[in-house]
Amino acid sequence: MLEQMGKNAKSASRVLGRLSTKEKNEALNNIAKELMLQRDKILAANAEDIKKAKDNGISDVMIDRLMLNDKRIESMCSAIGELIALDDPVGEVISMTKRPNGLLIGQKRVPLGVVAIIFESRPNVSVDAATICLKTSNAVILRGGKEAINSNIALSEAMRDALEKSGLPRDAVQLIHDTNRETATKLMRLNKYVDVLIPRGGAGLIRAVVDNANVPVIETGVGNCHVFIDESADIDMAVKIVDNAKTQRPSVCNAIENLLVHESIAEKALPPVYERLKEHSVEIRGCEKTRAVIKDAKPATDEDYYTEFLDYILAVKVVSGVDEAIEHINKYGSGHSEAIITESYKNSQKFLELIDAAAVYVNASTRFTDGGEFGLGAEMGISTQKLHARGPMGLCAMTSTKFIIYGDGQTR
Amino acid sequence: MLEQMGKNAKSASRVLGRLSTKEKNEALNNIAKELMLQRDKILAANAEDIKKAKDNGISDVMIDRLMLNDKRIESMCSAIGELIALDDPVGEVISMTKRPNGLLIGQKRVPLGVVAIIFESRPNVSVDAATICLKTSNAVILRGGKEAINSNIALSEAMRDALEKSGLPRDAVQLIHDTNRETATKLMRLNKYVDVLIPRGGAGLIRAVVDNANVPVIETGVGNCHVFIDESADIDMAVKIVDNAKTQRPSVCNAIENLLVHESIAEKALPPVYERLKEHSVEIRGCEKTRAVIKDAKPATDEDYYTEFLDYILAVKVVSGVDEAIEHINKYGSGHSEAIITESYKNSQKFLELIDAAAVYVNASTRFTDGGEFGLGAEMGISTQKLHARGPMGLCAMTSTKFIIYGDGQTR
Repeated sequence: MLEQMGKNAKSASRVLGRLSTKEKNEALNNIAKELMLQRDKILAANAEDIKKAKDNGISDVMIDRLMLNDKRIESMCSAIGELIALDDPVGEVISMTKRPNGLLIGQKRVPLGVVAIIFESRPNVSVDAATICLKTSNAVILRGGKEAINSNIALSEAMRDALEKSGLPRDAVQLIHDTNRETATKLMRLNKYVDVLIPRGGAGLIRAVVDNANVPVIETGVGNCHVFIDESADIDMAVKIVDNAKTQRPSVCNAIENLLVHESIAEKALPPVYERLKEHSVEIRGCEKTRAVIKDAKPATDEDYYTEFLDYILAVKVVSGVDEAIEHINKYGSGHSEAIITESYKNSQKFLELIDAAAVYVNASTRFTDGGEFGLGAEMGISTQKLHARGPMGLCAMTSTKFIIYGDGQTR
Repeated sequence: MLEQMGKNAKSASRVLGRLSTKEKNEALNNIAKELMLQRDKILAANAEDIKKAKDNGISDVMIDRLMLNDKRIESMCSAIGELIALDDPVGEVISMTKRPNGLLIGQKRVPLGVVAIIFESRPNVSVDAATICLKTSNAVILRGGKEAINSNIALSEAMRDALEKSGLPRDAVQLIHDTNRETATKLMRLNKYVDVLIPRGGAGLIRAVVDNANVPVIETGVGNCHVFIDESADIDMAVKIVDNAKTQRPSVCNAIENLLVHESIAEKALPPVYERLKEHSVEIRGCEKTRAVIKDAKPATDEDYYTEFLDYILAVKVVSGVDEAIEHINKYGSGHSEAIITESYKNSQKFLELIDAAAVYVNASTRFTDGGEFGLGAEMGISTQKLHARGPMGLCAMTSTKFIIYGDGQTR
């Protein structure tokens, strides 16, 4: 069955590859309309998922992730509107040079082909991912979690209806209805048809994909992020940034899990930071030097420094300076987003240069690592690998290139 | 042991990441000097490999691939000279924008980190790959074939000596001395340390890597390439291009394996093409319509159209026009290099647009798909996948990017 879905996706991708930007935007517009048209059906399907989740005693946070309502469907549609307004990268010729032998050699952006997405809980990912793929002429195979299966079916069928109404193949968007583990594993190994697989979810999912896939993968999401308060930091700024990076939305990948503080400023900086974090009942797990200043901090284990809590918990360490901070971050971090708060030019440059991460900040919150905030428009996820795309992935990350060569009889 | 090599490579890569272009070029220059200095030792090691190969009855073609001599060592050194002259992509800021909130967001080229190469027979790959990695501040782990192990040890030890003389860590270049299958498989799964694995060799090696790796892979090399002679083709040009693409060097990936001919020109074009190919004793395997024109062509099987012969064999098929040609190529081809010979503007555009391959040519030989010919300077291989790099990979393909963000206290 998956083999057949792969084949259908590949053949749909050939059709998508020939569309003009205008045709793709019309289809996107039809998808937005169809989601509004089928809204009741979608909400009814989502209500089933919610009921099942409650029966299974799933946490309120998870239920909130699963939930659709009028506002959330409207916000999917307005995201589609924003996507329509973005430039289409497909077909852009990014270089063209004439060689001494007269060959004219260009490099042109082309679709990736077939994109597979394995994602957890949030059903809006199916619409986000499918519409970004359509905009970039890629066919998509979606494999969502079992908790959201009814919602995902309703959303994908609405999108497929809209594709059909636009004269496009329904199979440009396909959802795997069978949510057992086997279908996910098969999808990871469908390299005859799938050009790239993007897992969106927790560390366990991403690890499973990396270990099992034979299709090219873009790793996303795991964020064990740090703020380092340097000796020369403006303490008010540090308090504001640490608070924002930790508490504005602790469940997301660009929130911080760790705070490093220069030893010469620890006694001055830690108390006001702690006072502010207490307002959100943030639990502090600190090294010995931290606990000498923050009396009610729990002791931090080595494991804590490796952990993405995604919760109101912060691991804190006092360090001897920017060099130890950099070393610590490159050892324990996941290469996502890292920030230094400093007034030192030299240390800011050193940190930007030597931290090995997708996004490195001076005097700003790590929470900005996001396609929208970076001005990319839509976002397909945040890559934490170095190949192909690193950091927030916009439309260009969903394309490949090909060389096009104009000759007049050249041989070698 | 591999775990330790990975660790050493990662730590060497941090040192390489801090080097200036000048320091890297000096080290490259020292490598070239050291190869000349240790030439006798290298040639003696190579002689051992050659002797063993002859004892094992290995073919002359393979022995030629394995062989080093003064000229080949000099040519390695002159390639290093060319590499020194190339621009260093590392550190280049490729975009910088100011966001409405005042954040200045740039994207900067950075090294990949640790690059692993698994390659077969030709020992010069170890020097090519290691020096390209050094130029782009990447540490490299080499795993060559057992036939060339003595040569590879001699070459890598010379390079490590040169690194040490340059004040750099020897482990910036490491060779796996144990050439059993297990070390290759372990290397493919060393994702804690290896940022990208590039297999260079035959289809079997590449398949094994794709199936087993959990590190990001760049597939290279397999080329099942075609020339299509369209109805309006200049027949002299077609003869010249087919001859060049097939016979100038049949053992390489950008040589053609297939010829497609428009049915309305088959009777005029096939005889002179065949006459020319006969000079190189090329065996023709054709469809029925081909065999009606070329009487001594053997019948082609479906399997033949899928095969990369790397030999003086050409599969030929008469097609109804450009649409069938495109469909055939997209089905049977490996997405490497494809050419159309035509005087039709419309068909040239269609072919360039719809062929799904790394390099698509109008009126030129597929043999130009090469880093040097494309003006990239050095080449790390030819990618046939769509992720990260497609086609010949120059220095930029050996880099990643990171976002650098300059703020003054921004929070979200």
